[in-house]
Amino acid sequence: MPHTDLTTDFKAYAEQVMQRCETLGKISQSPDFVDRRYLTPEHKQANEQVSEWMRQTNMQTWQDGAGNVWGRYLSPNKNAKSLLMGSHLDTVINGGKYDGMLGVVVPIALVQALHTQRITLPFNLDIVGFCDEEGTRFGSTLLGSRALTGQWHNNWADLCDEDGISLKRAMVDFGLDFEEVMQCKLSPSSLLAFIELHIEQGPVLEQKNLPTGIVSGIAGAKRLQFTITGMAGHAGTVPMDMRKDALICASEMILSIESVAKANDIVATVGAISNKPNAVNVISGSTDFSLDIRSNNDALRDEALADILRLCEQIANKRELTLKYQITHSASAVSCDESLIQGLCDATSACNIEPLKLISGAGHDAMAMADLCPIAMLFTRCDKGISHHPAEAIQAEDVEASLDVLFNFITHFQETQQAMEING
Amino acid sequence: MPHTDLTTDFKAYAEQVMQRCETLGKISQSPDFVDRRYLTPEHKQANEQVSEWMRQTNMQTWQDGAGNVWGRYLSPNKNAKSLLMGSHLDTVINGGKYDGMLGVVVPIALVQALHTQRITLPFNLDIVGFCDEEGTRFGSTLLGSRALTGQWHNNWADLCDEDGISLKRAMVDFGLDFEEVMQCKLSPSSLLAFIELHIEQGPVLEQKNLPTGIVSGIAGAKRLQFTITGMAGHAGTVPMDMRKDALICASEMILSIESVAKANDIVATVGAISNKPNAVNVISGSTDFSLDIRSNNDALRDEALADILRLCEQIANKRELTLKYQITHSASAVSCDESLIQGLCDATSACNIEPLKLISGAGHDAMAMADLCPIAMLFTRCDKGISHHPAEAIQAEDVEASLDVLFNFITHFQETQQAMEING
Repeated sequence: MPHTDLTTDFKAYAEQVMQRCETLGKISQSPDFVDRRYLTPEHKQANEQVSEWMRQTNMQTWQDGAGNVWGRYLSPNKNAKSLLMGSHLDTVINGGKYDGMLGVVVPIALVQALHTQRITLPFNLDIVGFCDEEGTRFGSTLLGSRALTGQWHNNWADLCDEDGISLKRAMVDFGLDFEEVMQCKLSPSSLLAFIELHIEQGPVLEQKNLPTGIVSGIAGAKRLQFTITGMAGHAGTVPMDMRKDALICASEMILSIESVAKANDIVATVGAISNKPNAVNVISGSTDFSLDIRSNNDALRDEALADILRLCEQIANKRELTLKYQITHSASAVSCDESLIQGLCDATSACNIEPLKLISGAGHDAMAMADLCPIAMLFTRCDKGISHHPAEAIQAEDVEASLDVLFNFITHFQETQQAMEING
Repeated sequence: MPHTDLTTDFKAYAEQVMQRCETLGKISQSPDFVDRRYLTPEHKQANEQVSEWMRQTNMQTWQDGAGNVWGRYLSPNKNAKSLLMGSHLDTVINGGKYDGMLGVVVPIALVQALHTQRITLPFNLDIVGFCDEEGTRFGSTLLGSRALTGQWHNNWADLCDEDGISLKRAMVDFGLDFEEVMQCKLSPSSLLAFIELHIEQGPVLEQKNLPTGIVSGIAGAKRLQFTITGMAGHAGTVPMDMRKDALICASEMILSIESVAKANDIVATVGAISNKPNAVNVISGSTDFSLDIRSNNDALRDEALADILRLCEQIANKRELTLKYQITHSASAVSCDESLIQGLCDATSACNIEPLKLISGAGHDAMAMADLCPIAMLFTRCDKGISHHPAEAIQAEDVEASLDVLFNFITHFQETQQAMEING
């Protein structure tokens, strides 16, 4: 039964979370920085560590056929469905200690708080530590969560890491079997929702001076590669009005991309540029650049992209250079469940924190999980919005606030669930 | 004595020039492309080939202490000064067959025409094939012509090529002595002028449909390196108005550089760009780019550069990024002699070619030679303005026109010289 008026001092729990993130951050393939990839000995070691923490809080633990680690805080209700919480335990190369891990370690602390106070829930609280979200080792992302949704492809068996080891082979070495991954698939009928806690990876909460924020949706992204072809020439001998300078043309396009993004309140990024021949005394003959464009509204994103492409074509035509582009990636936006958002907003307000809704521009396991059940995400503020970097940092006070919000949310979840049933 | 009304059919000479450029183009350190650097066996081989052609036209030949090859078409006048013609015999790596060589081979054909017609001159006509203009091997340019002006520095002895061989050592291997280079220095009192024929290396003559053009001056160049420092960030999570995107900032600067150059009728080129971390999904944290700015008017160039720097600082301030820059190269413009320009214009008109004056944006041996004597240059049209590239190409008809103009100029040089004395 729900406990609606519990207040808990989460300061000590937050300190423990910080220590556990340090502990996980030391489980690395490299002595110099955090690097923990799928199906490595360090993956196994992290799973064992997390399992041990889960067992210390009286959870049942297991590892599934993809290598995800699980713990269940069992409900006394024998027909209980599961509320899922979790995030990923793998990292990028030279990454941080919180991206992913925080979303596994905090729920364990929540269960500890529940267990310590002998609070039982009318649903199972399942915590999952996903084995691969970043895709660092085999290039394909969200392998852990996509195993639960049954979205693995047979041809992934042959995906190879940088040492030429196939996914299939690496699974055998880890003690798993590629052929049995499909058995990880979960039945939606057993699931109530998936809630993911994650560091923001952006600067909005810091700027708003808020410890936590409620994610309204995960942006859909498209990526394109542009190639501008002009005419290389001698920097001293070709008059300005006779040039076909690819880098200047690209520069004008990059500025127009910024303008369109600002006008449409979306994000668009030219992150990579490659220029030829790229010599001090030679006019650029060709310039390639990438575009990453994201929005929580796919239609708005695609309209903005159409504007960008129209403007870039105008610029290329005006300057008499050739523009080619291709779409290299496309993913749809995923919305968080309105009732779960409301539940998180209510919990946030109950903790005397202003409930700020924001979009997740980064992809998360919750994107895949949306195929199975309603999803929601809570963001924890991180220093300067830095992630995927050793400088990734969070404050214990913000972990405390996150624990407070999630504890409030969990202990009021039955009310949220009733709202979901009415809305759904 | 001058022969004022000679007309010669230069078609056969032009064909021979084209064949000789082919011959020189095959003397290369690489079997795959043209690559002939200072103090190599190929340098020696090219000098020997050029000497042989010179001797076939009754010229006296020698090699000086820097490795320049010389030929003299001796005047019957015992107290004659010398009119110098020539250009360089070295190439860039993967260069063309005409940049430099044409300006050596064409004067030899001129002497051949004079000699065949038993025309003598009241001055010695000295042809020089410079040993190093490009600076490909030791990084320092114009080594050949700067030996004649006495501008070699003692510390150049230790300049090393990519294999670690010093200039001093390479001279020994070639049969020269670094310590004796200063003896190459010419006395201005022995010189009338230096006339250099060169391919345009730009598209102006092609666009104007002219075979030749008269150089009014050689542009002075400054080079700068810019560094923009912003803040890297996740392409999905940082709103547009919270970004410090170094690549966008650089793009705005690159466009402003173009505007200033156009407004001031100079050339300014951002040829090289380097972006970090240069990843599709990361906002650029820092961007470096080069600037090469040239004009035949140093004051105008420096005013334009001041405008550029002011605008770039405004852009950096507006966007709240950091701008640093440093000047990495600075060379003053060199003017061609007005009387020589007029002489070349008159000769051009006499050949029924419109005399077009244009600036040389590229540097040439004539820049160094201006320290010794009045200089002038004639440009020959080249295909699409391409140089420093295997696609560098010229037409035999344009060589024929160049021979015609220069023959007319040489045979009227005493009149030009009288004008120089009046003007000078």
